[in-house]
Amino acid sequence: MEVPPPATLRKPLMVPSKTLMGPGPSNCSQRVLDALSNPLLGHMHPECLEIMDEIKEGIKYMFQTKNPATFCISASGQGGMEAALCNLLEDGDVAAFGVTGLWGYRAAEMAKRYGADVRITEARFGKTLTLDDIKESFEVHRPKVFFLVQGDSSTGLLQGNIREVGELCRKYNCIFVVDTVASLGGVEFLMDEWKVDVAFTGSQKVLGAPPGITPISFSPRAMHVINNRNSRVKVYYWDAILLADLWKCFGRPQVYHHTVSATLLYGLREALASACEQGLKSLIRRHTECAFRLQKGIIDMGLELFVDNPRDRLPTVTTIKIPKGVDWQQVSRYAMKKYFFEISGGLGPSVDLVFRIGLMGENATIEKVDLALKILREAILNTSNIKLNERSKI
Amino acid sequence: MEVPPPATLRKPLMVPSKTLMGPGPSNCSQRVLDALSNPLLGHMHPECLEIMDEIKEGIKYMFQTKNPATFCISASGQGGMEAALCNLLEDGDVAAFGVTGLWGYRAAEMAKRYGADVRITEARFGKTLTLDDIKESFEVHRPKVFFLVQGDSSTGLLQGNIREVGELCRKYNCIFVVDTVASLGGVEFLMDEWKVDVAFTGSQKVLGAPPGITPISFSPRAMHVINNRNSRVKVYYWDAILLADLWKCFGRPQVYHHTVSATLLYGLREALASACEQGLKSLIRRHTECAFRLQKGIIDMGLELFVDNPRDRLPTVTTIKIPKGVDWQQVSRYAMKKYFFEISGGLGPSVDLVFRIGLMGENATIEKVDLALKILREAILNTSNIKLNERSKI
Repeated sequence: MEVPPPATLRKPLMVPSKTLMGPGPSNCSQRVLDALSNPLLGHMHPECLEIMDEIKEGIKYMFQTKNPATFCISASGQGGMEAALCNLLEDGDVAAFGVTGLWGYRAAEMAKRYGADVRITEARFGKTLTLDDIKESFEVHRPKVFFLVQGDSSTGLLQGNIREVGELCRKYNCIFVVDTVASLGGVEFLMDEWKVDVAFTGSQKVLGAPPGITPISFSPRAMHVINNRNSRVKVYYWDAILLADLWKCFGRPQVYHHTVSATLLYGLREALASACEQGLKSLIRRHTECAFRLQKGIIDMGLELFVDNPRDRLPTVTTIKIPKGVDWQQVSRYAMKKYFFEISGGLGPSVDLVFRIGLMGENATIEKVDLALKILREAILNTSNIKLNERSKI
Repeated sequence: MEVPPPATLRKPLMVPSKTLMGPGPSNCSQRVLDALSNPLLGHMHPECLEIMDEIKEGIKYMFQTKNPATFCISASGQGGMEAALCNLLEDGDVAAFGVTGLWGYRAAEMAKRYGADVRITEARFGKTLTLDDIKESFEVHRPKVFFLVQGDSSTGLLQGNIREVGELCRKYNCIFVVDTVASLGGVEFLMDEWKVDVAFTGSQKVLGAPPGITPISFSPRAMHVINNRNSRVKVYYWDAILLADLWKCFGRPQVYHHTVSATLLYGLREALASACEQGLKSLIRRHTECAFRLQKGIIDMGLELFVDNPRDRLPTVTTIKIPKGVDWQQVSRYAMKKYFFEISGGLGPSVDLVFRIGLMGENATIEKVDLALKILREAILNTSNIKLNERSKI
């Protein structure tokens, strides 16, 4: 053998236990971690199919939808984004994107690669899109597909008018795609009531499962478009019609398509079961309350939130302006080194401008909020010369 | 809330422990299963990057390659297949596929969806492709890309002339893609020496990691083609140039692309570490010896192997003709019900024609071979009226 076995693989695997309070992944519960070490099942075994059925029902609850075409993409959240777009779009189709941060741009980039005619409507930096902005996009572009991010993790913006945009999409005969990767479970999302046609979310955010598997749901309206395409969906791996049969969404016999990861099914199943036990209302209330406490603590400290309008603040990811004289990388490194605690910097348009603190699932607790505030304060004071207000009673 | 939480998720998760001796997934070792329940890491944390580095080295050893562009696709083995094709192919490119079972057809179908001009060379049923077959394909089609499956799990065929085809590909200035999903670790594969340009394999076969993450390697020749495309790679998620930077293949700073699943990294890392400890030669010898014992046991029993020529038999998946008077589904169900033991039927062109018994990783042992023979015999005798030879001393 010309290539010898690497020496590095002779070391044992050592994984530190961290508090993941960046924009995700968040920490898995012990219940989820334990589930992951269950023995593998074949992807076509009835026990596996039963877990897939349970997962579908759990996703329907989380999305508040009755769509039969509700299943998972065997990929990260971005795979969900691409799956939504490549199923709906054909060469030359007009697709419009509402942009409040990195993710709208990312989706637009994907659609371009699939040959779509891409139109972008950007919100002012740090703001969400108004209904007028969006109405204008419909009037000017008459898109086949309109894409919106409910909660953009790069900016911490919450797009609050999904319901109204859903109405508009019907009026303009447009398919409505909503990215709920960073928001689902932390804020209200009513897929059917709000007339959303395709929604996808992250497993590793509020749900607290490992990444690598992405819940997605297609409305009958979306499936109608997909069933009536002129060309084949370009990505076999993400062909919604084949995936719906793999996941037995329409009661037809299961047809092998690809090997779904039983391991990731176990984790997601347990994460969904936990979320269902807690109930959406209670889950959302907990995230809202924790976010409010965090925001208040940040302001009390003398720091500024990136998002001005309180109604536009995403509870699951709080963005904090980096004060002059503070090096975010030093702050982040301090927190990680001393506490194994993750505080993130920005991403895409928010790089070098903000800290990002995630409150998701297991980490959306009063104790974790107070810990985050304590560590952020200490890290800033120890890595810069700026002054912060005395710690207020929260 | 209109959609209530599903009652099925209130039940505890129960996963039976099975012996997975179909064509994969195979059983994970306890070491791999234990690794899966490690706490999550962020996908950009240095500890995670270190694991990714170790995985790259492990894959290079398994493929016997020094290609810098060696990393993983965050998807199942079919994702690896699509990633290889969509990076290399542009609209109208001629791509030729050698077909010895389902997987060649599947790859051709993918390439068609990406807009390639697809040419297929089929082996006679139950046979592999001769060098003359392949030479003719080159002469007639002059393909940009030639695709071959080393071990087709649907037919149990081993394409033994990869080395010679590699030479041909250089002569005809063609990029050579080899699917080693079901074969790697069970038979010899020397990527660099055999002049293979792109290879990918399954995590859940000989390696014995969970599915959902797929090792892949691109030669400098393949990367040259990708770097000089006229159009963007259609699938953002599988863009090899971006993935190579996410995996730090070229020493450039790591750039975020998508969230790699730390859980699946842990499992794959431990599986690769085990394989490296055993060593490729010993691993291959074990699979060869076990396959020979299984084949002999099958013949001694009076059953027929699907692949006539012993040199064309894939050690990792043995295909056995279903005798007249035997219902494979009953046999399979008997084995599963009584022993939680998986014996598979055919797939694609081999449906209803063969049993498939997998010998992969943890399951490639003398004990498991003898168990498989015992259970197959008992299941056939108990579900049909046919006679089998007395059990010979193996």
